[in-house]
Amino acid sequence: MALKVYLSGEIHTDWREQIVEGSSDLDVQFDSPVTDHDASDDCGVAILGGENSKFWHDHKGAKVNAIRTRKGIADADVVVVRFGEKYKQWNAAFDAGYAAALGKSLIVLHGADHQHALKEVDAAALAVAETSQQVVQILRYVLTGHLPG
Amino acid sequence: MALKVYLSGEIHTDWREQIVEGSSDLDVQFDSPVTDHDASDDCGVAILGGENSKFWHDHKGAKVNAIRTRKGIADADVVVVRFGEKYKQWNAAFDAGYAAALGKSLIVLHGADHQHALKEVDAAALAVAETSQQVVQILRYVLTGHLPG
Amino acid sequence: MALKVYLSGEIHTDWREQIVEGSSDLDVQFDSPVTDHDASDDCGVAILGGENSKFWHDHKGAKVNAIRTRKGIADADVVVVRFGEKYKQWNAAFDAGYAAALGKSLIVLHGADHQHALKEVDAAALAVAETSQQVVQILRYVLTGHLPG
Amino acid sequence: MALKVYLSGEIHTDWREQIVEGSSDLDVQFDSPVTDHDASDDCGVAILGGENSKFWHDHKGAKVNAIRTRKGIADADVVVVRFGEKYKQWNAAFDAGYAAALGKSLIVLHGADHQHALKEVDAAALAVAETSQQVVQILRYVLTGHLPG
Amino acid sequence: MALKVYLSGEIHTDWREQIVEGSSDLDVQFDSPVTDHDASDDCGVAILGGENSKFWHDHKGAKVNAIRTRKGIADADVVVVRFGEKYKQWNAAFDAGYAAALGKSLIVLHGADHQHALKEVDAAALAVAETSQQVVQILRYVLTGHLPG
Amino acid sequence: MALKVYLSGEIHTDWREQIVEGSSDLDVQFDSPVTDHDASDDCGVAILGGENSKFWHDHKGAKVNAIRTRKGIADADVVVVRFGEKYKQWNAAFDAGYAAALGKSLIVLHGADHQHALKEVDAAALAVAETSQQVVQILRYVLTGHLPG
Amino acid sequence: MALKVYLSGEIHTDWREQIVEGSSDLDVQFDSPVTDHDASDDCGVAILGGENSKFWHDHKGAKVNAIRTRKGIADADVVVVRFGEKYKQWNAAFDAGYAAALGKSLIVLHGADHQHALKEVDAAALAVAETSQQVVQILRYVLTGHLPG
Amino acid sequence: MALKVYLSGEIHTDWREQIVEGSSDLDVQFDSPVTDHDASDDCGVAILGGENSKFWHDHKGAKVNAIRTRKGIADADVVVVRFGEKYKQWNAAFDAGYAAALGKSLIVLHGADHQHALKEVDAAALAVAETSQQVVQILRYVLTGHLPG
Repeated sequence: MALKVYLSGEIHTDWREQIVEGSSDLDVQFDSPVTDHDASDDCGVAILGGENSKFWHDHKGAKVNAIRTRKGIADADVVVVRFGEKYKQWNAAFDAGYAAALGKSLIVLHGADHQHALKEVDAAALAVAETSQQVVQILRYVLTGHLPG
Repeated sequence: MALKVYLSGEIHTDWREQIVEGSSDLDVQFDSPVTDHDASDDCGVAILGGENSKFWHDHKGAKVNAIRTRKGIADADVVVVRFGEKYKQWNAAFDAGYAAALGKSLIVLHGADHQHALKEVDAAALAVAETSQQVVQILRYVLTGHLPG
Repeated sequence: MALKVYLSGEIHTDWREQIVEGSSDLDVQFDSPVTDHDASDDCGVAILGGENSKFWHDHKGAKVNAIRTRKGIADADVVVVRFGEKYKQWNAAFDAGYAAALGKSLIVLHGADHQHALKEVDAAALAVAETSQQVVQILRYVLTGHLPG
Repeated sequence: MALKVYLSGEIHTDWREQIVEGSSDLDVQFDSPVTDHDASDDCGVAILGGENSKFWHDHKGAKVNAIRTRKGIADADVVVVRFGEKYKQWNAAFDAGYAAALGKSLIVLHGADHQHALKEVDAAALAVAETSQQVVQILRYVLTGHLPG
Repeated sequence: MALKVYLSGEIHTDWREQIVEGSSDLDVQFDSPVTDHDASDDCGVAILGGENSKFWHDHKGAKVNAIRTRKGIADADVVVVRFGEKYKQWNAAFDAGYAAALGKSLIVLHGADHQHALKEVDAAALAVAETSQQVVQILRYVLTGHLPG
Repeated sequence: MALKVYLSGEIHTDWREQIVEGSSDLDVQFDSPVTDHDASDDCGVAILGGENSKFWHDHKGAKVNAIRTRKGIADADVVVVRFGEKYKQWNAAFDAGYAAALGKSLIVLHGADHQHALKEVDAAALAVAETSQQVVQILRYVLTGHLPG
Repeated sequence: MALKVYLSGEIHTDWREQIVEGSSDLDVQFDSPVTDHDASDDCGVAILGGENSKFWHDHKGAKVNAIRTRKGIADADVVVVRFGEKYKQWNAAFDAGYAAALGKSLIVLHGADHQHALKEVDAAALAVAETSQQVVQILRYVLTGHLPG
Repeated sequence: MALKVYLSGEIHTDWREQIVEGSSDLDVQFDSPVTDHDASDDCGVAILGGENSKFWHDHKGAKVNAIRTRKGIADADVVVVRFGEKYKQWNAAFDAGYAAALGKSLIVLHGADHQHALKEVDAAALAVAETSQQVVQILRYVLTGHLPG
């Protein structure tokens, strides 16, 4: 068994690198959104031409990014969505809902302080983790049957 | 043509009532989640038995609520998702992603201050409105071809 | 909102009647398999001709019953599966898996003694109840937002 | 033609090994659940933290295991489900129902004593076998057209 | 429970009338293809203009008829396909395959002499009947649980 | 049998009225896009606020109209697409492709002069008509089996 | 572009070999049913045990063969169905209907004498050929754009 | 991440070559229709035999071409549809609608003069470009996160 895993959500810490490195011995193919914040915000106008309105500036960029995120989620067996400490992160919750509707196995990754606010998202998940290490352990167990310790 | 419309999201203002009343002459059937905040939080343990852990208290409730919200979204032609001024509202964004993945026509309703944070959600929508009145006007136009004014 | 509910599983107690009667004030349409045990066992040969082999006797009956059970599950919004105290009840677990794969909202109903053996089935459910009364309370809450007490 | 085969059900005998070894000359890729009984029972709490309640202990584990079993069934062309002599084995029947609803080719493997109790499961199958050897012969015939003897 | 039943196949005997009349006390809605043989053959050219080539004459008619047959099969819960004594009846077998791929409950109706030639069609069916009376008995049992005699 | 028919395409002649009136004795429910050309062009900005750019002016309107057209096509059994004498009519061809991909029964209505340019669209259709009268005759035949004359 | 092609139908002439050999320079992967007539008839009882009844003898075999044919059709981009001069060949028409319902590109191969009897099958096809050579030419054109001559 | 891209539409300029060459360093697999205009028009009769009627001449060709175009669109992650300066190009708009209904990521490529006539097509797209270079930049950004300049 091999897994395709899409890593959605927070882009301000190195949680993706932790998971990818921790899984380097496993048969996993990872995908993720573009995590360069400025490029992600400006891709629409940088390629397709500037906009006077902030709304359409953002709209063009969000749609170009959607080409990648939809492909990433559609191809994935497992979608990991991380909610960080800051910001609204509505795109993360949107991705979680999108993945859930497609029947993907969902792993949610967040700190205890977000527990109540994320209860509907967690309820759609097959695992709720607090650390990247736990996500790695889940992937290892799923693929090999080996548990930590 | 008749429409089924699901009203998701913020539960602290009367935006649902405004839309339902404004559409009273239209062939629309509205559904929405349980909007009694306490009932929504406690339904799981009230029916299925208490939990010591807040996580499982919330988990049981969120799953019982999902019976209603999944049915509401699955049956809808149009899903309206409102983001209010306060709170994380990740369940609203989750519903928007869920609806988008099912190919539902999505209308997002929010104030201008949330524009940038909601750009991915807005990009999946067929209309982005700021007022309940605009949502009513869209429903009226879609069903009758009549524009305001 | 109205619900279609399919009541699968154990046929030796009156749990279906309890749920139907308890929900008599709700907008619910119930379906269930044929619960006449002898008719259910013999329907194939009674209509389509006898078989010397017990396997084919059962096979013909199980397929005729499948016309009803597949229709009932496919049309349902909610599938309630009850596991009683006795027998193998593999058809109940089969129905639960079938309903889960179709994305139906699953409610499992069983006593505490079956908890460990049913953990995979329960994990796919949106509610795990021990009494018919709890199922009625869930349906009432989902449809009206009212909690017991 | 090549086949992906998922081997679901009983974990106390070596039937999987018999099938895999007997098919070693065939273009078949096998998957199966984690068959280490203790790891399978405890994977949820071992990775995601302990639970006081047996129900949630089992629940967390069953969901983590579901990441693997859903992937295995979803990817399979053929799902073989074996029912052994002992235990409730409701997860096996659940997998059979899940596979049937997804339109997978189902092979059920069980002894004659379970014939009546499994009639609904057998009725959904394309083959009902009593021995691992027969499953190997089916796979060989399907892939090569060669019959035994 | 109510059933939608599509009656496909042979058009030279009154088997449809027998089933419809025998089911007059049941909650069944029947549909069928146009059974006027001449109209069915000529509908394409009669409406859309004549053709010199027999192939295109037939082609236009077969496509106009497909508007009805596809709708009938797609809407049905149960598809009954009858093979009569004469003719190739490839359209009947085509309908059976079409219905099977859509997951419809299939009942095949034919005499014993066609048993071997129809084995693949029968293998996809939930019931193989020899008489219209048996089909009525199946519908009655599925809807009411009552067996004949 | 009853039919839902969506009438897409050209809005400058009374072909829709001809079909609706000609079918007044049939069990058909018709839907169509908003055919008020000005309202259709301006609905986006009239409801959701003006745009300086013609592209976004049109974009907002096209998306609001899509709420209606997607619903109309998704609900239809038969989609009739008419290509008139003038204009690009790319929205008509888009609707035809959309309907074809959803497996709808497609009837294309156009004059002989467009035959070569519409060959790919016609190839996906179950009928290619030149007059509204022919469409009425098809609907009458499909529903009643009666041919003209 | 590469194509997966399933070759269904008549097993008494060498039409499959003609197509496979004629396509040897093309990027096509062919599959077909087991074409050994005796093995195909007896596979069920040879593996799973004898039956006194011819019906169940055939039934077991047809189901085992279905593991292969369903896989072959489901994986195919193009399904070629050949109707020979003799026999009922209802399995061929069944496969054609099955393929059509799954949206496969269908090529039907038959002599002119079967034209009228196959009009419904031909109407669902993207090409109707009379010779294996024509099928090869279609595959070559589809993959390379080269026409014969 | 790798992408499959289908290039639909105008065949009179070298826009496809520009995109393919500009993407030569990217992990993209391109497909397109047969772009030899004469071969595309005549493929049906060249292989399957001549027709007296222009309609059926075109019909046979359009269906043979559909084997390739449906496969190309169905397999694609991204469908690029170009509208040139001339001709009706209804097949391009048909492909766009077909791709949209399948949920493909759609990029529309056209000059500013077609903006109003293509507003419904553009509204279904994730990007509207004016040059092949912009399409290449989108593909590069989606796959690598790199923006031009």
